[in-house]
This record gives sequence, C-alpha cells and structure tokens, in this order.
Amino acid sequence: MLKKIVLTGAAGELGSTLREPLSRMCEALVCVDLKDAPGPLASNESWAVADCAELDQVAPLMEGAEIIVNFVGIPDERSFEELLRPNFLSSYVIWEAAYRAGVRRVVYASSVHAVGMWETNAGIDTDAPHRPDTFYGLSKCFAEDLARLYWEKRGLEAVCLRIFSATESPENPRALGTWLSRRDLVHLVERAVDSPTTGFCVVYGVSDNDRSPVSNARVAFLGYRPRDNAETHAAAILAKASRPDPSNLAQMRLGGPFATVALGESGVAGLAKLVKGG
Amino acid sequence: MLKKIVLTGAAGELGSTLREPLSRMCEALVCVDLKDAPGPLASNESWAVADCAELDQVAPLMEGAEIIVNFVGIPDERSFEELLRPNFLSSYVIWEAAYRAGVRRVVYASSVHAVGMWETNAGIDTDAPHRPDTFYGLSKCFAEDLARLYWEKRGLEAVCLRIFSATESPENPRALGTWLSRRDLVHLVERAVDSPTTGFCVVYGVSDNDRSPVSNARVAFLGYRPRDNAETHAAAILAKASRPDPSNLAQMRLGGPFATVALGESGVAGLAKLVKGG
Amino acid sequence: MLKKIVLTGAAGELGSTLREPLSRMCEALVCVDLKDAPGPLASNESWAVADCAELDQVAPLMEGAEIIVNFVGIPDERSFEELLRPNFLSSYVIWEAAYRAGVRRVVYASSVHAVGMWETNAGIDTDAPHRPDTFYGLSKCFAEDLARLYWEKRGLEAVCLRIFSATESPENPRALGTWLSRRDLVHLVERAVDSPTTGFCVVYGVSDNDRSPVSNARVAFLGYRPRDNAETHAAAILAKASRPDPSNLAQMRLGGPFATVALGESGVAGLAKLVKGG
Amino acid sequence: MLKKIVLTGAAGELGSTLREPLSRMCEALVCVDLKDAPGPLASNESWAVADCAELDQVAPLMEGAEIIVNFVGIPDERSFEELLRPNFLSSYVIWEAAYRAGVRRVVYASSVHAVGMWETNAGIDTDAPHRPDTFYGLSKCFAEDLARLYWEKRGLEAVCLRIFSATESPENPRALGTWLSRRDLVHLVERAVDSPTTGFCVVYGVSDNDRSPVSNARVAFLGYRPRDNAETHAAAILAKASRPDPSNLAQMRLGGPFATVALGESGVAGLAKLVKGG
Amino acid sequence: MLKKIVLTGAAGELGSTLREPLSRMCEALVCVDLKDAPGPLASNESWAVADCAELDQVAPLMEGAEIIVNFVGIPDERSFEELLRPNFLSSYVIWEAAYRAGVRRVVYASSVHAVGMWETNAGIDTDAPHRPDTFYGLSKCFAEDLARLYWEKRGLEAVCLRIFSATESPENPRALGTWLSRRDLVHLVERAVDSPTTGFCVVYGVSDNDRSPVSNARVAFLGYRPRDNAETHAAAILAKASRPDPSNLAQMRLGGPFATVALGESGVAGLAKLVKGG
Amino acid sequence: MLKKIVLTGAAGELGSTLREPLSRMCEALVCVDLKDAPGPLASNESWAVADCAELDQVAPLMEGAEIIVNFVGIPDERSFEELLRPNFLSSYVIWEAAYRAGVRRVVYASSVHAVGMWETNAGIDTDAPHRPDTFYGLSKCFAEDLARLYWEKRGLEAVCLRIFSATESPENPRALGTWLSRRDLVHLVERAVDSPTTGFCVVYGVSDNDRSPVSNARVAFLGYRPRDNAETHAAAILAKASRPDPSNLAQMRLGGPFATVALGESGVAGLAKLVKGG
Repeated sequence: MLKKIVLTGAAGELGSTLREPLSRMCEALVCVDLKDAPGPLASNESWAVADCAELDQVAPLMEGAEIIVNFVGIPDERSFEELLRPNFLSSYVIWEAAYRAGVRRVVYASSVHAVGMWETNAGIDTDAPHRPDTFYGLSKCFAEDLARLYWEKRGLEAVCLRIFSATESPENPRALGTWLSRRDLVHLVERAVDSPTTGFCVVYGVSDNDRSPVSNARVAFLGYRPRDNAETHAAAILAKASRPDPSNLAQMRLGGPFATVALGESGVAGLAKLVKGG
Repeated sequence: MLKKIVLTGAAGELGSTLREPLSRMCEALVCVDLKDAPGPLASNESWAVADCAELDQVAPLMEGAEIIVNFVGIPDERSFEELLRPNFLSSYVIWEAAYRAGVRRVVYASSVHAVGMWETNAGIDTDAPHRPDTFYGLSKCFAEDLARLYWEKRGLEAVCLRIFSATESPENPRALGTWLSRRDLVHLVERAVDSPTTGFCVVYGVSDNDRSPVSNARVAFLGYRPRDNAETHAAAILAKASRPDPSNLAQMRLGGPFATVALGESGVAGLAKLVKGG
Repeated sequence: MLKKIVLTGAAGELGSTLREPLSRMCEALVCVDLKDAPGPLASNESWAVADCAELDQVAPLMEGAEIIVNFVGIPDERSFEELLRPNFLSSYVIWEAAYRAGVRRVVYASSVHAVGMWETNAGIDTDAPHRPDTFYGLSKCFAEDLARLYWEKRGLEAVCLRIFSATESPENPRALGTWLSRRDLVHLVERAVDSPTTGFCVVYGVSDNDRSPVSNARVAFLGYRPRDNAETHAAAILAKASRPDPSNLAQMRLGGPFATVALGESGVAGLAKLVKGG
Repeated sequence: MLKKIVLTGAAGELGSTLREPLSRMCEALVCVDLKDAPGPLASNESWAVADCAELDQVAPLMEGAEIIVNFVGIPDERSFEELLRPNFLSSYVIWEAAYRAGVRRVVYASSVHAVGMWETNAGIDTDAPHRPDTFYGLSKCFAEDLARLYWEKRGLEAVCLRIFSATESPENPRALGTWLSRRDLVHLVERAVDSPTTGFCVVYGVSDNDRSPVSNARVAFLGYRPRDNAETHAAAILAKASRPDPSNLAQMRLGGPFATVALGESGVAGLAKLVKGG
Repeated sequence: MLKKIVLTGAAGELGSTLREPLSRMCEALVCVDLKDAPGPLASNESWAVADCAELDQVAPLMEGAEIIVNFVGIPDERSFEELLRPNFLSSYVIWEAAYRAGVRRVVYASSVHAVGMWETNAGIDTDAPHRPDTFYGLSKCFAEDLARLYWEKRGLEAVCLRIFSATESPENPRALGTWLSRRDLVHLVERAVDSPTTGFCVVYGVSDNDRSPVSNARVAFLGYRPRDNAETHAAAILAKASRPDPSNLAQMRLGGPFATVALGESGVAGLAKLVKGG
Repeated sequence: MLKKIVLTGAAGELGSTLREPLSRMCEALVCVDLKDAPGPLASNESWAVADCAELDQVAPLMEGAEIIVNFVGIPDERSFEELLRPNFLSSYVIWEAAYRAGVRRVVYASSVHAVGMWETNAGIDTDAPHRPDTFYGLSKCFAEDLARLYWEKRGLEAVCLRIFSATESPENPRALGTWLSRRDLVHLVERAVDSPTTGFCVVYGVSDNDRSPVSNARVAFLGYRPRDNAETHAAAILAKASRPDPSNLAQMRLGGPFATVALGESGVAGLAKLVKGG
C-alpha cells in the first residue's frame, strides 16, 4: 500500500477512469486538474485545482508522494502555441516538482502519436525511434526524452504508456488493432504503479487485439497482460467501413488520421469524420 | 462484402479448401484452374478453365475483381523448365493482369521453401533474407520480389503466405513444428483478405504449434491467430519416428526434406519416403 | 523411448525432481552423484556414486547413453577455487566422456547468472552476449561455450537451460518475474530431451509469469510452453516487500542479489537475507 | 549557386566561422542574431537583429530563402527556464517560418549532448535512440524530433549536425576522440547545404580523429569526409592529463562533463575545470 | 593463373572493358556473346557466338572453366517479356551449365536496381532485403536468389556485384554517390575472381566516392578497395544540376530514375533526359 | 608516463616484441615468464620467473602496477588438460591478483579463435557471440567473460585483443586477410594501454589489409589505426597457393586451420602443413 499517489489530469476522460482504481492502491490519492472535482470524492481522495504548467502550484501537491500518474494535457492536435503550456511545459514542471519532492516514479500518458508516422505493417517494438505525427505527438516525444533524462541524471523512474485508442469500444477498422479497453488501461496503470522497480521504460497501451500492430516483448518484465480483444467487434465494424485505400496514410500508419491531418488541426475531428463516413 | 474475388489454382488441394470460405466473403467468386470444376458450384461461384501463364486468358477474368487469391502452381519441386510456366510466369501474368484490372490486392500462396535453407533453431522472423531450398522455393522468392515491386511501383497490395505443412494432420516429427491445419489456413486467408490495408507483407502460415519454429511478430497487425496445435499428435508421431540425426539437413533446416533433395527432384516424394521410414 | 539417459547431480534439489519424469522417458536411467542414493530407486533406475570432475569415473557410465542431463555442480556463488572442480572441470569431463561414448545430446543446467548483469528492463532474448554476475555465472558461460564447441566441431548436440528461480513457489518480488515452477522445469527438460534434433541452443527456464523479463522467441522450435504463473502470489509478496530501490542493482538486473554479492560470496544467502527483510 | 541562405546565430562562435564560407555558396546571405554585426559585412551579406523565438521577427527574413543554417541558441547547459526561448522555442519558430516561406531545408546545429548519456565504448551510429545528458541536450532532442515531423508531414528537409567538441584545437583527453576542427565544421556545413536532397537525417560532427567514438556510416551519402585528426595533439594532452577514472561518467560517456554536471549547471564551466585540473 | 575463364556478354559495354584484364588472369579466356567479336582477339582469347538462354549452346563452352564472369543481359528496363530470355532465363542456363561442368564460381553483374527502392539516406549494407525498382531489377533479384540456391545446395560459389553507375565519368548529381569508374570495376572483378574462396556473397560496385550511399563493410574479406572518387567532378556537375526535389523518388532512392520510370520503360532513357535537363 | 606495467608471457614471441615499446611507456616494466630472461634488460626493466597459474607467485609482482599486459599462455591448440593451467587458470590468477593490487586495467592477448567458427564472409564485428574453434579458443572465451565480470563487479578495466595472424609477414592466402604486422601489434597494444578509460571492450588485432574480414567500428574510440597491408604480398602468395576449396572449413571460417583441426591437436602444425602444401 503506497502512502500517496498524485494523479494529474484527473478530470479528463482517462484520468476519471483511473481515480477509483488508484484510490485503492494508496492511503491518499491527490487528484489535480484545472477543473473542479466533478462530484463526490472517495474517502482517501482529495482534489486540487492547479495549473500543472506552474511549478509553484504543483510543487506543494507533491510533498510525500511516492508516485505521480501524469495524465495532464490536451489529448488532441492543436497549434504548437496552444499545446506549449498544457503538454510541453507541464511535463517539465511535473518532473521537476516530483524530483524536488523525492518522488520515486512518474507514470506518464504518452501516446502512439510519438511514433505515429511508423508504418502499421512494420511491426515496431518499444525501441523504435520517435516519428511524431503531430505537434501533439511531438509533445509526447519531448516528455519521453525528458523522462529518460531525469532517470539517467537524477534516478527518478518513469513508465511511459504509449496509449493507443482508449475508448469505450472500438469504433473503426483501425481500432481493431489499436483499441485499448478501459479494463486494460486500468490494468496497465496498475502494473506501472506496482512494479517494484522500472527504471525508464516505454510500453504500448493496447489491448490484446488480434490485430494489435506493435510489440511489448522488450518490456515484458512489467507484466502487462491485456485481456480484451477488439476482434469481437470486427464483423460489425468491417461491414460498414469505408473503402480501403493503401495510398491513404491514415490507413497505413500507426497514427491513423493524425498521420494525415494538417499540423495544428484536430486529429480527433478528423477521426470522427472518418468514422461517420465509415 | 467484397464484389468479386478470383481464386486461381482452385482445383488444387489447398485451393479446394478455400472455395467455400471465400465464397462467403464476396458477391462473386471466380475459380480459375487448368482443370475443370470437380463438382457443383456455389450459387455465387463461377469456374473458368484457363492457363494462368497466358495473359490473354487471365486478363478477362480479372475485370471488376477486388482481390486475387493466387494459389496456382505446382506445389512441389520439379525441374526449372517444368516450373517455369506454372510457377514463375503465372506469377508475372497474374500480377500484371491484376494491375491492369485495378485489383486492390493479391493474396499469394508462397511457401516456407522460400526460406527453407534457414536453420530451424535460428528462430527467424518475416524479415529474414531469402534462402530457397529448391527451384520450387526459388519460384516463391521470385513472386515475393515481384509482389513487392508491384506494390512499391504500382500500389498493388500483396500478402505473401509462407505456407508450411498444410495437411489434414501432422504426419512426422518436423510437422510438430510446421503443421498448418485446414482451419488455420482458412483463417489466415480470411485475414489476408479482410484486413483493410496491408501494403506488401509476408506472413508465416503455420498453426499454433508448441514447436512452431518461426515468428509472425512483425506482421501482428494482420490478426492471424491460429488455434490448432500439432502437439496433440506428438506422442504418437515421436513414438514411431526414425532416429534423430543432426547431421541431416532435412532434420535441421526449415525446408525439411526439400533442404536435401536434389534440385529438380520431388521433395514431396522425399518426404513420403521419410514418413514411411519414420 | 530412449535406451539410456544419464542424469548427473541426481541428488541435488533439481536433479531429484527430474528422476521420476526422466525414468519414464527411457529404458534405463543412470543417476550419478557424489552422494549416495537418498532412497529406493525406480525399477529402471540405477545409481552411481562418482566425481564428475574425473574422466575415468564418468566415462564408463556413459556407455550406451543417448542423452545426458547434466545438473551437476554447486548451485550458488563460491570462490573460484571451490567452483573449479564441480562446476568448471565437470563440464569438460562430462562433454568429453559423452563425446567419446557417442552420446547424442547434453541437456545442461545453465543459469540466468550467465547473463545476470543484464538490465531486467532490457528485455533480452537468447542471443544476448554473456554478462556473468559471479564466478558461478562464469562457470555457466564456460560450459555454454564448451557446448557450442562440441557441437560445431564434433556434432554433439546441447540444450542449455538458463534456469531462473527454481523453487517450490515464488518467494520475493523478483521471483514474480523469474520463478520456474517444478512442473515447468520438468516440462522444459522433457522437451529438451524429446526434441528430435536441436543442434546447440540456449533457452530460458522461466515459468509463464506475467512479469517474465526475457524472451524465448528464438528457440520456439523447442516447444517449451510453461503453464505456471507467479502472479497468483503477487498480492501476498508485494504486500510484504521491502522498499523498491532502483539504485540497487539487486533489484534492477536479471541476476538479482547475485548482481551485488561480492565475488565468491554466497548469493543464495544474500537472497535469503533479502527475503527475510522483505 | 543558391539564391539565399539565412544563418541564424551568426554572431556566435560557430556562426561567425560559417559566414565567409556560406557567403560563397549563395547570392545573398542573411545573418541573424540578437546581437549587432561584429564588424564589416561581405558584399552579398546582410545582417538582421532579431529574436529567433519570435515568429513575426523571423518570418520576414525567410522570404525567398532556400536554406536555413540554424545555429541559434545557448551552447551550454542552463536551467530549463533559461533555455526555453533561445533553444526550444526558437527551433519551433525557425522551422515554422521556414515552412511558411517555402524554404527547402534547415541545417541545424544539434549536439552530441542529444545522445550524451551513451557509453563512449558502445560505438553508436546515427540510429541510436536519444539519451540527453542535460536540458541543453534535451533541447537538441526536441529540435531533431521537430525536424523529422516537418519533413514527414510537410516535406521540409533537415540535416541535424550533432556537433561534438568544436574548438580551435583539442584541449583534453576526451577531445582526442570528440574534436571537430574549424575546417571540418565548415566542410560539414557545406555538404549539408550542397547535397541535392537529404530528407531528414542526422550526422555526427566530429573530425577524422583516430579515437572518434561514433559512426557516420549510415549517412555516407552526405559525403562528409573530415580531414583533421586530433591525434597530432595526443602526446601533449595525455602527458598532462589527470588520472583516468572509469567510475567517472564524465570519462565514460559521450557527453563528457555534461554527463555528470547537475541539470541546469554549466557543463562548459565543468569542462574548463576539468581541463585546468588536467 | 587460372586455366579458363568464360566471360558472357563480352560484347557489351562493361564486358568489353573486362576482356583485357581477365585475359591476363588465365590461360584461356572464352568470350561469349550474341554478337560477333568486335575486332582482333588477344592470343589466349577465343570468341563464341551463342544465345545464353539456350543450355545446349552454353554448356559446351563451360568445359574446363574455373570461373564464369556473367555479364550477359539487357542493361536497362524493358517489358518483362523482353527481359525474360536475356536476363532471367540466361541466369538459370549459365548457372546450370556451370554446375554441370564443375565450374567453381560465377561472378555476376547484378545491379543496384535489385535494391533500387531503398532510400538513399538509409545507408543500407549488403544484408538489406531486395527492393527492386523495375523488371530489370527483379531479374537481378532472381539471379541473386538462384546464386544462393546453387551455393547452398550444390556448392557453386557466387559473387554478385551490385553495379551502380558504371560510366566513363560521373554525369549527374546522383552519380556523385553512385559512380563506378572503369578502373574500379576492373579491380572489383579481379578481386571477385582471385579471392580464394567466397561462398555466396553480394558486394556493391561503387567507387570510393565521398557521397557513396552504401556500405560494403560486411564483405570486406573480398578486398575491394576502390580508388576513384566522383567528387572531383562535383563542382561542375552541381553547377548545372536541375532543382533538387525531395518529393521526387528519382532523387531520393538508390535506383534514381529507375525508381520513377514506369515498369517496362527504359530507365536509361529517363536518365538521359534527366541529365540533359540538368 | 605510467608508474609500472607488468608484462606476462614476456619471453613468448609476441611478448618479446612488446618489451621495448612498453618499456618506453612507463617508469618500471616488470617482465614475467616461466622462462629466464633471454638476454640483457632495458634500464627500467626487471624480469621475474613465475608461474602465472599460481596466485602467490603472481600477487607480489602486481604491487603498484597500473596496467597488466597479459600475454601468457600456450599460443596453440592442445588438449584441455595441457591448457588448463597456462591458459585458463592463469587468467583467473592474473585478474584476481590485479584486482587485489588495485591495478587499473588488463590488456589481454585474446585470439580470433574465440570466434573462429564464424564464416569469413559473415563480416562480423566485435559484438558477435563466441564461437570457439578449439580448446585454445575456448580458453580465450573464458578469459573474455572473466574480464567482463571483473569489470562489471569490480571496476577493473580490460581490453581484449583478438589477435589474428601475428607473424613477420603474411604466409598464406588466409593471412592476406588476417595478418597482423609487428608494427600494428605494437600500435594496438600502445593504444590499449594509453586510452584514458576503456571499461571492458574487445578489439580485433588485424592489420589494414585489403581483405581484412572483420570490423572494429564499434571500438573506434580506442584509436587503433593499423598501417600495414598484407596485399603487398598477394601476388606472390596467390601464385603458389593450393587449390581453393569452399567445402573446406579451413578456407571458409575465420579460424582457418583451427576450424578443422581435431580438438586437442596443434593448429599451428596444421597451418604449417597447409603452407608447405600451398
């Protein structure tokens, strides 16, 4: 049982999912977000409204924490200027504050978009070089390199979760490979938290889909064993899918629609369009 | 539901197995073979007798097809001259006709014998260089390179299935590792057909055998998840197996008896002899 | 059914476990140890007291044997001088005697400690270079290289089992990844014995633990499919574990406490201390 | 002969070195710096005082440029806050302005410190993952990933020069391997400019030193063939060198003193101390 | 001094260059071509007019030969049908005839176009998988795989020379990297002939150009050490070069214009156009 | 200038060559051998007769030494029993004594025969796994692993020189690739001694031969730049060479005649026979 976990981005879609399971792993869970708490808290939960790009707001919250689960940031493509504070600067601030407070580990919501320009049929593993597909992906590359720096120079551990399509259910042909179920997300975070030591490592956050395009073989020590499989939705999804087009990078690269969206324009919107068209 | 699939080599042992499952995936299945149809056809099935080494015979059959499942060719070692038309030239003709007709993808019956000289204990994956063991294997290397060329220059997709021992049941010690069940063959072809986009890729056609010697990790995106396992036959097969001999390449290379057969001489006959002796 | 198997180190903890299953695989099982037989023998079992570092004692026992299962040696760190005979010289003697007697294969109890200085989060496979953590590990490196030499120069096969934590049940956080159950050990040895041909190869002896840190993908042909999983003990073990410390090599390297123990000093004792402290 | 080159950081130590050779490669060389021009300009040279972290200051200077030689930034470790504008934001601004102006390529002064935590005896090549040693190194990782993004999404080429020890002459034992002479620096930049097409690539900026620890084999197409060799200074330097200490990361990692300096503290100062003590 | 060498394609541009140096390496040089001898022969030279796609024409010429230098074939892209006999079938015929005659080695004029779709800035070595850019390149892939088959199954050695731009002098920007001088071609063939044993291997035929894009490091044992360097022509060539265009595969792939030419259309013509336009 | 170097095996052929150059690098050179000094000593040289397999004989000689140059051992294949003391045990004793005396580094005469079963045309680098060709080669594998252990556990550096054919001049076709001239040997040892820090590393000891079959690219930091080239002897050697035979491992593996010699029988004698027959 950990003394204290800090969860940043606690009001976000994924952050909300993690509150309950994280609260069971520690004596005190401190949720942090720019927004107010959306409702009642668990008995060992507290809520802090703070801007994670501001060191003086974040630093006090870290006191006594053992592990930070860092899910802060805009989860979509935006202009570089819009992402600068919530996605780039917040990473620096959170790692720096964590280091100063003697925190042991940061579990970070990185993203497939750090390697989104890789070909889906390349079968990359966690050693592949960065190939961001958007400014959003670039912010994840930045944080991963930062995480490695803090580990190598300061001994602060980091587990970077390259989250794929974390939705209630798979919604399009790409998600047959890239879906991450809620249950598997929670399991992944639990392992990233409870592994006794991790150093710096990167792990793909994807369910046990038949068509999962990447390999976690090099970080098997983490014990991430997903149980859900998007294939149960395959027939329905493929039946209404739009025409396959191998000349379309959105269908051929890990990043999906982010691989073709213009820099600075929402990839989620592009995805939605793609699904509707499906 | 695809509009039209063309299955070449439809009268062959494996081609016959694929007719029924393919007919369920499309509105029209066109079966092509040098031989006549062996019996009644499904309602959406038609049969064309054609020499796949002749472009003018093949071209008309391709009109309107989306996917070609190319299982044409002699499935055994022969002299180069005997293989030239059915195995080499037919590949060129089928890809060229498919390209001209605007076909989207060729699913090709390649073979383990394209890499048959690799050591069984090397644990190769789908990136290993060609090491053919026979002229037969060489014809598969030729078609794989041709497939890559048509993809890179002309955008015609290809999934090359390196089929191992596709028999009713495993028949000798090698097959404990190399067996491909009928059910898994069908599943493999279905995934090669229904994957929305594939580009060019190679996948090993082997069941989920305990002793399967190769890895499909790099093409996991295809979603091939075999379910059969030759190990259920292990006790019976090993009990009557001939003496293990590590100085015998037929026991030490992926190609099995093809690794030792003289060029131009039937490897299947060699295999049969080996089994009887077993 | 093999004619004769010789099991060296038959009185040791692991050797004892193997007697019954090996006796079922052959007409005659010859157990060899420095110690007397601990009790009654199976009907097809015989027992020989011999010093495996002495060629003239070992050689006669090899006559007519097909496979040697070599589990002789001190299973812990000691001074080089203490390990010289039982761990180094016995390997030479056993391989040399086996070769002279026309034995087909040696199955060898190597150890994780041949690669114990590798980082746990590096995800190595069976191709990783030697990085011994102790003189004990060095004796395993020596035997593996010797095994390869006898295979390449003399055609004597070898399967080197890099055994991890072979205990009744997992006993500490590291063992959540490294545990090898008794059942899986037996299964591993059975496969190393019954595989028709193996050449020279190395395989990790670890159960199907969620957190298993290494990969056997390259030797899949052996058909080792472990069934036990230390994760069932995770909650209990992690609840009483000592504080994680990523600056402690014993928590960050495959070798565990052997990675930090002084050369020549017992790593098992170090481990015991660690467990008690846990 | 190029129409226009823009050189940012033109008043810096390395920027100053590049003015004359770049002015010979184009019709118009635009030098940009926060500082005024240090003296008279060449006839085809102009000078602009601008803050490269401000898009509206940089954008107008890019009009009509074919190639940007981007040497802006603090060439040493500082706090993250101090580096944010000159090293991080200026990279975004320069690439964005270059893209908007239709520039063809950015030649960028990256640094060994993007990979400074790699072991000197690892012999890495240009494919090795980022392992920054400082915030300074992190700013180089950021710009390299940004450069790849602009290439993959927008077709703007980039050559990232990982400059090692660019000094008048080698000054310490590490520099026997890491020295980059003025002449070789100029040659490297010339090739990065005159190569007809480059896509995105990374090249190590190091002279033809006997002891050069890294390999440019993968980017041989650039034609960088250095001619100077620090070895001519070896006797003098080694004679007065301090005691070798393999437990000191500053002597064992590519980044040298940056590998041990505290994050945010000047590595150049650490280096100077190291040299004086030498 | 070898007894007999057979040079096929002896009337071709490269074949002609090789006659004199090969005649000095053997007692008897047999030149073979579809065309008549263009002029007087050396004293130990004979000339045979033969179609190398016809086994009965080729076989008698092989009697007593030790080494075949196989430069037969159309050195340009053509339709598959046009290339079938001179480039595909001749390879089979020559290897088969060589094998039957007990020849020791075939030195083969392969081509960069066997790997022409690889990115120039990928820095590939001789292990890279085939990526042909044309039917012409496909014929080279076919022959290389055939060569490996004859080596692995029949012990007939082969050295496959992947010849780049073998012209009198470099003629365009690409050739600054890809030029192979006459002198270096001769040197390469000499080493391929005089190396005592070679097994099967592939070597890039490219001069010691500053900008040579590929590596022969893995076949250093051949002793190919080119002496010419296209860089002496760089200033002149770059001065009149057409606009660099990284979106043009002809400028970004090893195959140059062959990477963009339509299948079946002359790449040499495309190249000529490109040079004139330059 | 080093205080003290100890040279073991000083009376051997290579040891003798190293005395003079090493004596110039230190204040005191201590030569150790089983044999007496062969003649007069340099002014700063002393000579100790000692058995390097005896710790109590070696330990006193190490006092105050900074670097050990360990060239002790039989330089040829013998039975394991004959090699045990001079080649295996002496390595343990020397490293142990060096460690106890606080020595900084051991420079060790390893050998190509640690990897002698590798194919000559594989182009291996210094990362290739051990593949010893003899008991002699096995003794080198043992010492290299020991060296790594002492570095990783005890911080004692080691440079393992895999010496190839260290003879006055190249004597046979294999030596055109494998020759190591006296001058280059001395240069190699000098660099192994004067490199400020090395950790554990392996370097091939081979001259700058055109036909050198291996790569030192990964240990370029050592600054080994050989200057001699066996090619000047090529014409003479090849003229009288015996018939090439690619089915003869002695001609196809790095170890040359050691790859075929029976275990325990002199490879040097085999080599001599091969040369005379040449």
